[in-house]
Amino acid sequence: MATTPPTRSPELRKDPVTNRWVIFSPARAKRPSDFKSKSPENPNNNSSSCPFCIGNEHQCAPEIFRVPPDPNWKLRVIENLYPALSRKLDHPNGLNDDSSSELSGLGWVVAGFGFHDVVIETPVHSVQLSDLYPSEIGDVLIAYKRRIEQIKQFDTIKYIQVFKNHGASAGASMSHSHSQMLSLPIVPPSVSTRLNSMKEHFNQTGKCSLCQVQSKDLLINETSHFFSIAPYASSFPFEIWIIPRDHSSHFDELDNKKAVDLGGLLKLILKKMALQLNNPPFNFMIHTSPIQVTDSELPYSHWFLQIIPQLTGVGGFELGSGCYINPVFPDDAAKILRELNVP
Amino acid sequence: MATTPPTRSPELRKDPVTNRWVIFSPARAKRPSDFKSKSPENPNNNSSSCPFCIGNEHQCAPEIFRVPPDPNWKLRVIENLYPALSRKLDHPNGLNDDSSSELSGLGWVVAGFGFHDVVIETPVHSVQLSDLYPSEIGDVLIAYKRRIEQIKQFDTIKYIQVFKNHGASAGASMSHSHSQMLSLPIVPPSVSTRLNSMKEHFNQTGKCSLCQVQSKDLLINETSHFFSIAPYASSFPFEIWIIPRDHSSHFDELDNKKAVDLGGLLKLILKKMALQLNNPPFNFMIHTSPIQVTDSELPYSHWFLQIIPQLTGVGGFELGSGCYINPVFPDDAAKILRELNVP
Ligand SMILES: Nc1ncnc2c1ncn2[C@@H]1O[C@H](COP(=O)(O)OP(=O)(O)O[C@H]2O[C@H](CO)[C@@H](O)[C@H](O)[C@H]2O)[C@@H](O)[C@H]1O
Ligand SMILES: Nc1ncnc2c1ncn2[C@@H]1O[C@H](COP(=O)(O)OP(=O)(O)O[C@H]2O[C@H](CO)[C@@H](O)[C@H](O)[C@H]2O)[C@@H](O)[C@H]1O
Repeated sequence: MATTPPTRSPELRKDPVTNRWVIFSPARAKRPSDFKSKSPENPNNNSSSCPFCIGNEHQCAPEIFRVPPDPNWKLRVIENLYPALSRKLDHPNGLNDDSSSELSGLGWVVAGFGFHDVVIETPVHSVQLSDLYPSEIGDVLIAYKRRIEQIKQFDTIKYIQVFKNHGASAGASMSHSHSQMLSLPIVPPSVSTRLNSMKEHFNQTGKCSLCQVQSKDLLINETSHFFSIAPYASSFPFEIWIIPRDHSSHFDELDNKKAVDLGGLLKLILKKMALQLNNPPFNFMIHTSPIQVTDSELPYSHWFLQIIPQLTGVGGFELGSGCYINPVFPDDAAKILRELNVP
Repeated sequence: MATTPPTRSPELRKDPVTNRWVIFSPARAKRPSDFKSKSPENPNNNSSSCPFCIGNEHQCAPEIFRVPPDPNWKLRVIENLYPALSRKLDHPNGLNDDSSSELSGLGWVVAGFGFHDVVIETPVHSVQLSDLYPSEIGDVLIAYKRRIEQIKQFDTIKYIQVFKNHGASAGASMSHSHSQMLSLPIVPPSVSTRLNSMKEHFNQTGKCSLCQVQSKDLLINETSHFFSIAPYASSFPFEIWIIPRDHSSHFDELDNKKAVDLGGLLKLILKKMALQLNNPPFNFMIHTSPIQVTDSELPYSHWFLQIIPQLTGVGGFELGSGCYINPVFPDDAAKILRELNVP
């Protein structure tokens, strides 16, 4: 009879920010698989057929802006050709809060008004985000900010989700380096849950949970304005958060100087992840605050950037319970990444 | 310049049960992919090396029970050899509610006590759940019930998540037909959210939201005791719920007669899904109530079985916002499945 080798005991942890329970279970890392082949990723390397490559702008949905504003652009923000939400719908009336959504016999419904944009991060097909200079990554971040400032003008937009998919197993359908911005007429559930949870912490301790989070064991790297950690209740192995040192509720408070600083840290972390985890597919998400917040919400609202390398899939347990199983304790992940030297 | 072809306008919907917002966006179905190859699934077809096959019982973790109780078994419930939670930890003290979990400097923590079991649904490697007779599927469902009744004796267990992973892209690491039961010392977040949401509906309308859900447009098939629908705010294309007709809070209220009836409907739905969607990987999850519920919670607590074919992956948007993008409206999915003839 086979037996389980002894390992660190499993733990359940609840994150004070996401309010989510996670099971840490190192023993799970050793389980076998009898599906032999892993999905080989054969991305399109043919830049003549890639609409995001320089010279193929006519194959794309309309441009919103480019940087610099001339034919030799370094990045472009364009409309998504297959948008999840439509910018052409009439602005819904009276949609000043979620409660004004319509109740059909079966549930709540809101017209699908919104903006779905693509940020092309480089003109060159073979260049990845982590190949760019810190200042160039800073330019991408400032492009997000500039687009957020445009969209904030629409008071029907409640929240803007900025995210990046890299690699097929992270959901990407396009291999040319890009990210996306989806501007929503609702505040999504994970944002409300997060803010409620941060509020609770604030009410109990008088402090912002992300201002307090610094822990030597969880720290990976830090710069003048940012620090990166493996969060205490990481849902995924090697999940990483990059957090501004100074309390800041909204991503678009980022200035040019901080953008370059963040660009440098993001580059370092992506390089470390690629080196340690064999160039994994990954997602990153910017967790910011809803566009409209009250003064009383500001003291506990603190934006951050979350990076998730896609190493394990999820299954029925996670889908059913909303609870994740993570085989790697975050202090172990942090130690490995902290001590790694990037050549 | 390419343009988007006209399609049904997108909509955002919030499900009254899960309380989750979903974007319905038919236009998304048409987007291209430049990752050419899809993950080929090469499962282990060699039953001599599969621990779940009859004759290889010695390769497994200890058995809990088998049906029938002789060498010629038809199903077995065994311990998971790589459990996410440990049944060997001391029962945590004073864990009578979640609030008694310990607050470390960084978040909440609970010892990882729990049971993680595997249900081997058939002795034969090549047989799938949908190949079994309705009464045999009924036996699998009754095995879940019997195991739940054993685990209910531990008052430190708060919730039991029953789930099935079928196919590598649905997370399965073993190809031999099986399901899993994970018994948790907490009530997971999606369960609390669901119950809070059903309570709100009950307080507003005086009715259980799942007793009310019947809608001709969403119906797929029905039997004496169950009906199946594509839910109003499906998070995934072709997501299906099977719901008991009579109000019932806990899955383990299922009796033998209803188990055979449910077995027949589950078989039909899985056959239809395989036929229509080209034998997709899928997950199913049983959504039941926490073990300990108060009398006042019973009127709005109604268990159901959720089936999710894995047709699209998720990406950074879903991970970030907790909000899903679904390219197929549920009434379209229901119509297709309802009208499909299974030979
Ligand atoms: N010529 C063109 N002009 C403009 N835009 C073009 C275009 N050709 C393609 N596009 C758009 O470019 C985007 C590329 O995005 P990604 O590769 O990050 O993943 P995608 O959004 O397809 O889906 C992943 O991310 C989403 C959101 O997380 C998940 O719902 C999904 O399951 C996952 O696969 C697509 O949204 C596509 O619509
Ligand atoms: N000899 C043996 N005796 C007893 N048990 C044995 C065994 N050999 C293997 N097992 C167990 O059998 C189970 C088979 O389960 P599945 O194939 O449904 O997926 P798995 O749990 O691996 O992970 C999927 O489901 C989980 C839960 O949803 C996700 O966390 C994960 O990412 C996803 O891949 C495994 O849990 C494994 O530990």
